[in-house]
Amino acid sequence: MAVTKTSPFAPEAPPVMPQLRGVSLVSVEAGIRYKGRKDLLLAVLPPQTVAAGVTTQSATRSAAVNWCRNHLKRGNARALVVNAGNANAFTGQRGIHATELTAMAAAGAVGCKPEDVFLASTGVIGEPMDVSGFSVTLTDMARGASEPPTQRDWLDAAAAIMTTDTYPKLAAKSFVSDEQPHHVAGIAKGSGMIAPDMATMLAFVFTDVAIDVQLLRDVVRELNAMTFNCVTVDGDTSTSDTFLVFATGQAGTPKIAQRSDPRFLAFRNALHAVMRDLALQIAKDGEGITKFVTIAVKGAEHVIGARKIALSIANSPLVKTAIAGSDPNWGRIVMAVGKSGAHADRDKLSIAFGPHIVAEAGERAANYNEEIVAQYMRGDHIDIAVDVGVGSAAATVWTCDLTHDYISINADYRS
Amino acid sequence: MAVTKTSPFAPEAPPVMPQLRGVSLVSVEAGIRYKGRKDLLLAVLPPQTVAAGVTTQSATRSAAVNWCRNHLKRGNARALVVNAGNANAFTGQRGIHATELTAMAAAGAVGCKPEDVFLASTGVIGEPMDVSGFSVTLTDMARGASEPPTQRDWLDAAAAIMTTDTYPKLAAKSFVSDEQPHHVAGIAKGSGMIAPDMATMLAFVFTDVAIDVQLLRDVVRELNAMTFNCVTVDGDTSTSDTFLVFATGQAGTPKIAQRSDPRFLAFRNALHAVMRDLALQIAKDGEGITKFVTIAVKGAEHVIGARKIALSIANSPLVKTAIAGSDPNWGRIVMAVGKSGAHADRDKLSIAFGPHIVAEAGERAANYNEEIVAQYMRGDHIDIAVDVGVGSAAATVWTCDLTHDYISINADYRS
Repeated sequence: MAVTKTSPFAPEAPPVMPQLRGVSLVSVEAGIRYKGRKDLLLAVLPPQTVAAGVTTQSATRSAAVNWCRNHLKRGNARALVVNAGNANAFTGQRGIHATELTAMAAAGAVGCKPEDVFLASTGVIGEPMDVSGFSVTLTDMARGASEPPTQRDWLDAAAAIMTTDTYPKLAAKSFVSDEQPHHVAGIAKGSGMIAPDMATMLAFVFTDVAIDVQLLRDVVRELNAMTFNCVTVDGDTSTSDTFLVFATGQAGTPKIAQRSDPRFLAFRNALHAVMRDLALQIAKDGEGITKFVTIAVKGAEHVIGARKIALSIANSPLVKTAIAGSDPNWGRIVMAVGKSGAHADRDKLSIAFGPHIVAEAGERAANYNEEIVAQYMRGDHIDIAVDVGVGSAAATVWTCDLTHDYISINADYRS
Repeated sequence: MAVTKTSPFAPEAPPVMPQLRGVSLVSVEAGIRYKGRKDLLLAVLPPQTVAAGVTTQSATRSAAVNWCRNHLKRGNARALVVNAGNANAFTGQRGIHATELTAMAAAGAVGCKPEDVFLASTGVIGEPMDVSGFSVTLTDMARGASEPPTQRDWLDAAAAIMTTDTYPKLAAKSFVSDEQPHHVAGIAKGSGMIAPDMATMLAFVFTDVAIDVQLLRDVVRELNAMTFNCVTVDGDTSTSDTFLVFATGQAGTPKIAQRSDPRFLAFRNALHAVMRDLALQIAKDGEGITKFVTIAVKGAEHVIGARKIALSIANSPLVKTAIAGSDPNWGRIVMAVGKSGAHADRDKLSIAFGPHIVAEAGERAANYNEEIVAQYMRGDHIDIAVDVGVGSAAATVWTCDLTHDYISINADYRS
C-alpha cells in the first residue's frame, strides 16, 4: 500500500470515551491481510440490547451487509464482529458461507444465537476470505472480554477497523436524564469509496439508553440523512457501507417509547452529535485531503434537489481540483449546479466563498476581487454557499479536495 | 496554464480534409485570452445551407448555447462564429448582449440575417467577454474568406477552437451517390469538463449533401446518442456543449427527403463515422490521459440502464485511478456496477479485461491469474466488458484514466 501522511485534519487527541456498562470491545491481530496491526474487532453486548441501522443500497452489496439487513428486522443484538483488509464482497456462495461461519463462531464464543450477531467486513473486494480460524480466534477474544471498555479498548477498536484511514475515528456525547448519566459513543472508518447515496463506510454507535427498537430505527434513518449521507469523498459508493446503533438499556432508566418522552430529545441530540462528529471525521480523512470543504445550498425547490446540487458540486472533479489548487474558479460551481439535474435559475444564482460573494443574480459580483478571494482559498477550511434562487429548501454537504495524493493512494492500493 | 504534454493517442497525422464547395473557414488571433495563437473561427456557408444540432441540457448553459437553440428551430445557416478562451457563460445580461453583437457583426460581414449566424464560445466561465472589436475583426475575416477550404484552413480552424486540447481534432468521410462524390467533414474540441448526458464540448460538421432539415435533426439526435453522448472524461458537463451539422447542398444532387431514399443510408453512415471519430478523439485527448478505455456493458434491462452502468464505471475515480496504476482491481468495477442505480444481478455478473475473464457468476473466475491480467493492464488500450445478467440490452462508452496530470492541469487551469 502507498505510504500516506496523516490527514492535516486529524484530531489532536481522541475524545474521552465512556465506560459503557455491559459492553466489551476486544481487538486482535488476526492477520487477515495486514501485518503487525489489529484487524479484527469483537464487541460483546449485554442481553436486551436492541439494534437499528442503515446499509448501502448498492446492487453489489457484500454478504455481511445482506446478513445485517436480514437480522436488523428482528433488531436484537449480542455481538458485533468487524474485520478490516477483506470486504468479503463479490465472493459468491463462499462469501455467504463465510458470514454464516463467522456468526456461528461468534455465537458459540459469546453464548447467543447466530442471528444476534452483526457482521461487517471492509477491504479488498472479490478476494475469498478465509474464516476457518475465526472459531478459535473469537472464542479466545470472548474469553478475554471485560466490561466496561477502557479508553485503550476504544482506541484499539477504532484502529482495528481502519483501511486507508490515517487516524482512528471516535466520538462520544453524554447527557443526564432521570438524574442518571447516559452515554452515546461510537467509532467509524473511511476513507475512500465514500459517497452518500446510502449510509457510510462503517460506523458503530453504542448507548446505554433503553429505547423502543422501532423508535430507534426511525431516528437513525432521520439523522443518517443529515449526517453520513451528506459526506462524500469521491462519489464512489462502497459495497459494504454499514451503520449500526446498539442500545443496551444498561443505564437502568425507563425505556423511551415515544417521541413525546422528554428523554427522547436529549438522546436524539446526543446521537445526532456523535453521528455528525463521526461523519465529519470521515470527510476530514478523505484520501489525499488538504482542504476540508463545506457546501451549503439554499433556495432550492425541495431538500432532495438541494442535496443533489450540493453533491453535484462536492463530487465534481473540476471543483475539487480547483480547491486543491486554491483557485477561486467559481465558474466550475456554476457548471456543477447546471449539470445536477435539479431545478436552478441561472439568472438568480449567487455564490459565496467564505465571506466573499463572488457571483450574484447570474453573473460575477460587481465588487469581485480575485486577489482577495484567492487569499481566502489558500486557507484549509473552505465554505461554499450557493443560492439557486427557486425556492426555500436547503442542504449541507461535507467533502474534501482532490489531490495528487488521492491518485497516488488509489493507483496503487493493492500492491 | 499548466504545460502539458501531447496525448499519447494524438493521431500521427491529420486526415486529408475535403474541399467543400461554398464553405470558407477563416481563423485569426483575436487575443481574447490566449497570446500567440489563433482563437477565433469564422465559417461562411452558402445560401440554402440547413443546420441541425444538439446542445447541453445544463441549467446554467451559456448565452451562445441559448442563441443556437433558438435559431436551430428555423434551421437556416450562413455563418458560424466560434471563439476559444472565454465561454461567455454565466455573464448575465452582458453575455446575452455579447452574443447579439457578435451575430450582428457576423451578419454584416457575411451579408445575411443575424438569425442565420450560429455561435459557440469555450473557455473560462463567468468572465465578461469584450466583443467590441468583433465587428471590425469579422469584417476583415469575411473579406479574406475563400472557398473551398484548404487543408491549412481546416487545420487552423480545428486549432482555433482548442482550450486544454493537446491536438486538433478533425475527421472526414466521403461517399459516392448519383455518381457524385459527397463529403462529410468536421472538427471538435475537448478535453476536460466532458460528460455525456448531453452533447459534447464543441463539434461542427459540414457536408455538401442536400437534406431535409427535419430528417437531419432526427439523424443527428440518433447518432449523437451513440457517439458524443458515450464519451466521458471526468463526468463534468460543460455549460457550452454544442454540436452542429451544416448541410450546404452544394454537391448538386437531389435533396434527401426521407429515410427510404437510398442516399440516406450512405449519408448516415458517413455522418456516423465522422461523429464517432471526433467523439473518440475527444476521449483520447482527455486531460492527463495515459490509457484509452472502452467499456462495453451487455445483459442489461434496457439501453438506458446499460449506458448508466457503463458511465458509472467510466466516471468512477477509483476505477480510473486503478487503470492509471495498471491495477487489475476488478472489485472496483463491481462497486461501480452496484452504485449505478440500474438493475444488475450480483450473482450473475461477469467481467473481462481484454481477453481475460476475471469474474463470473458473482465471484472471481476460477482460473483468474493476477499476473497475466496485470500484464494486460500495463497496455495503453484497456477494454472492459461487463455482463450484468438481467437482460439483453448493451451500450459502449469510451473514456480515459485519471492521472496526476489531470490534477496538475485542473488545479492550475486559470493561473
